Amino acid sequence: MTEVTRTEESTPLKIRAFEELSDLLRARFTTNEILRQQHANTIAWATNQPPEAVAYPENEDEVVAIVRICSAAGLPIIPFGTGSSFEGQTNAPFGGVSIDTSRMKRIIAVHDDDMDCVVEPGVTRKELNEYLRDKGLFFPIDPGADASIGGMVATRASGTNAVRYGTMRESVLSLRVVLPNSDVVRTGSRAKKSSAGFDLTRLFVGSEGILGVVTEITLKLHGIAQAISAGICPFPTVKAACDAAIMTIQSGIPIARIELMDEMQIKACNIYSKLNLPEQPMLFVEFQGTENGVIEQAELFGEIVTEVGGGPFEWATAAEDRSRLWVARHDAFWACNTLRPGAKTVATDVCVPLSRLAECVEATQRDIRETGLIATIAGHVGDGNFHVVPLVDMDNPAEIEAIEGFLHRLVERALLMEGTCSGEHGIGQMKRKYMRAEHGDAAIRLMHALKAAVDPQSIMNPGKLLPPL
Amino acid sequence: MTEVTRTEESTPLKIRAFEELSDLLRARFTTNEILRQQHANTIAWATNQPPEAVAYPENEDEVVAIVRICSAAGLPIIPFGTGSSFEGQTNAPFGGVSIDTSRMKRIIAVHDDDMDCVVEPGVTRKELNEYLRDKGLFFPIDPGADASIGGMVATRASGTNAVRYGTMRESVLSLRVVLPNSDVVRTGSRAKKSSAGFDLTRLFVGSEGILGVVTEITLKLHGIAQAISAGICPFPTVKAACDAAIMTIQSGIPIARIELMDEMQIKACNIYSKLNLPEQPMLFVEFQGTENGVIEQAELFGEIVTEVGGGPFEWATAAEDRSRLWVARHDAFWACNTLRPGAKTVATDVCVPLSRLAECVEATQRDIRETGLIATIAGHVGDGNFHVVPLVDMDNPAEIEAIEGFLHRLVERALLMEGTCSGEHGIGQMKRKYMRAEHGDAAIRLMHALKAAVDPQSIMNPGKLLPPL
Repeated sequence: MTEVTRTEESTPLKIRAFEELSDLLRARFTTNEILRQQHANTIAWATNQPPEAVAYPENEDEVVAIVRICSAAGLPIIPFGTGSSFEGQTNAPFGGVSIDTSRMKRIIAVHDDDMDCVVEPGVTRKELNEYLRDKGLFFPIDPGADASIGGMVATRASGTNAVRYGTMRESVLSLRVVLPNSDVVRTGSRAKKSSAGFDLTRLFVGSEGILGVVTEITLKLHGIAQAISAGICPFPTVKAACDAAIMTIQSGIPIARIELMDEMQIKACNIYSKLNLPEQPMLFVEFQGTENGVIEQAELFGEIVTEVGGGPFEWATAAEDRSRLWVARHDAFWACNTLRPGAKTVATDVCVPLSRLAECVEATQRDIRETGLIATIAGHVGDGNFHVVPLVDMDNPAEIEAIEGFLHRLVERALLMEGTCSGEHGIGQMKRKYMRAEHGDAAIRLMHALKAAVDPQSIMNPGKLLPPL
Repeated sequence: MTEVTRTEESTPLKIRAFEELSDLLRARFTTNEILRQQHANTIAWATNQPPEAVAYPENEDEVVAIVRICSAAGLPIIPFGTGSSFEGQTNAPFGGVSIDTSRMKRIIAVHDDDMDCVVEPGVTRKELNEYLRDKGLFFPIDPGADASIGGMVATRASGTNAVRYGTMRESVLSLRVVLPNSDVVRTGSRAKKSSAGFDLTRLFVGSEGILGVVTEITLKLHGIAQAISAGICPFPTVKAACDAAIMTIQSGIPIARIELMDEMQIKACNIYSKLNLPEQPMLFVEFQGTENGVIEQAELFGEIVTEVGGGPFEWATAAEDRSRLWVARHDAFWACNTLRPGAKTVATDVCVPLSRLAECVEATQRDIRETGLIATIAGHVGDGNFHVVPLVDMDNPAEIEAIEGFLHRLVERALLMEGTCSGEHGIGQMKRKYMRAEHGDAAIRLMHALKAAVDPQSIMNPGKLLPPL
């Protein structure tokens, strides 16, 4: 595979392509610099690398037309949802056109009886849940940010509910995707399972826009539980909290959320969300089920807490109390800045087998101390997945180098423990360098072969996910 | 893609390849005719098309060597587990070498804490569960036959437990696969989730051996529930039974199994399993959970049964009573023959959205009557998936033609209802002709492009899964 190279030069081919896009989309095609910058990375600590133009299609036909025009001119295409990805997935290192899906917001169908829905990629998860609320249904995947469904497909997003409801991998029934050759592929049906050929759906979920542009998503939904209760619990050590999480999963308690925040993350949340929690490692948990089931779950969890020396475990069923706690958890990332105003937050995540979680988190905390960093840890510990958010002074090269060493060791540690370099943020630009260590040369060759088969020109989101061959 | 063509001729290349395989495997390489026939289709109503030779590797290195030798000679490779697939997946229409994995039966690791295990492909699901029993863990995927885990990966198998535990799609954490170019790829880690690149695991799950030979599987396991109870319930109509299934799923009852058998299937089971059930549509159900949870589930289910006019609902927690019922359910396929001794059983399945299930089953029953067939229906109705087993006199061409028309209408009906031509049996040889109608031309082109990228010579299980381009 040869990668396209960036050129800001206005070649005749590019000029014609831009004219065609302009004719097609009118005001919905722009080369405005501020808009271009807003469509490149703004959250990751990657440099902002804006596309050369931004297109705002309103339907699949327009996406096909855009892809056809870009493909004829060899112009890179960068699909864009809300820009909340953490690893530089929306940057345009080789220029090209960002396809902003924010005007593709139709909720095409909700099938109450089948508990599924069909949406366009620009619908955000909160918009969808707002729409579904009256129907007693909800879409559980919750990565924190109000990401677009299309973006969540692209990064194989998950989040706090994944321990119970799975990730986007398990939530997508089918997709419509525009391929680089402008073919439109439907990847599945509305049947809950199928053995009819290759799993094209899963090929695209997590492919970060390097194989095609998603134009429609059929999602599994779930019924809103009869009863929900939430609780918080401090622990003397991170290990005790992780042990409680492991025992909870192993004992088969169908816990809906089980979230770790370390002492530093609690400190940040106390400041940001005006809480008064003890600055100790804590678990935030949520139980869903029948009235009796929720009580049974909470009691079983309480026994585990006692067994590992944690507590007191406090739980609440009142919606406003639950909500206040979970708002704090959701704001955890934004809270980090309070620990070091002006610094850049470097959000990263790894995921390891559950049995190695406590060891991995503790070793990471030691590394934070020894490297002299300010960093928080929060995690979806029921899955063995945790986030580390170091705060970096981007004007201090020595500090940047220290952070890079730390991130490298974090990934190395996760891989040595049979884990993965990214549980849910994806690879983007920032973690390409770890792909070979994680997957091995043969798997990387295979991924390149698949990519070349679908996108021989390499115009789809170049410079992301795959390391150079 | 050009397909290899069958030749039984002994070309110099083939003679040398067979000599090399013989040197490598000694008595574990054979061209014995009876063994060859046993390694082709024996269950589906496809013709038996034996491979030219059978190889019995004992480890991954030997698989790599076999693939290298076959690839150099352009010889087809057909991976073989236990031969229990229904759609002719093990036939060798273009000759070649069957790779029988029955000597690759190591259970490499069981990680109790992480609830996963690592096995070789020849381990069968019953062997695995036998091994796990003392650990309080089990592997839930249960397609009926005592299939090999490798074969279950290949067909994306599911079965009675899928409504609760998912299918092989959700059960495989990682694979090791030998590619046609003899690269060995590890497709994932032991982390429960990952966003690190393409989902190679799901690319191979369900690919029916047309992309590579699976040599190792890492599987998710589950804890054996504290309490299990089973029940049976007759209904006045298939529609009432399906409605009960739909309402059960919608109300969020975490039912472990919910199986429909129509009146004809019950009749067969009564004869074969010496039961005395009313010859009416029935649901067989199983609840798993805590002692209280199981009672709560059964009570809720009982209310639903009453609401749709079914009953009496009888349930039992004694292991022997449960076991007797489920043995009858598992033997349902073998029981069909009692309805027409000497006839061939044509096992097929489709899967539709839950809301269309009753309509699809009833229309299929009408079609059975109108076509004048003897056929049973049994299904994993919590997933919208059901089996139809017509009994055919293979010496009667008019009857074969009638069956072919019936099967065609069955698939057409499922596709019109936004379903799939195969819920769990796979495509093999027999359903290739429906692939284009289900997926559309663009998706078929994409599948061919992926296949060609991985297997440019088209030596991996040719003539399966993909329709001609």
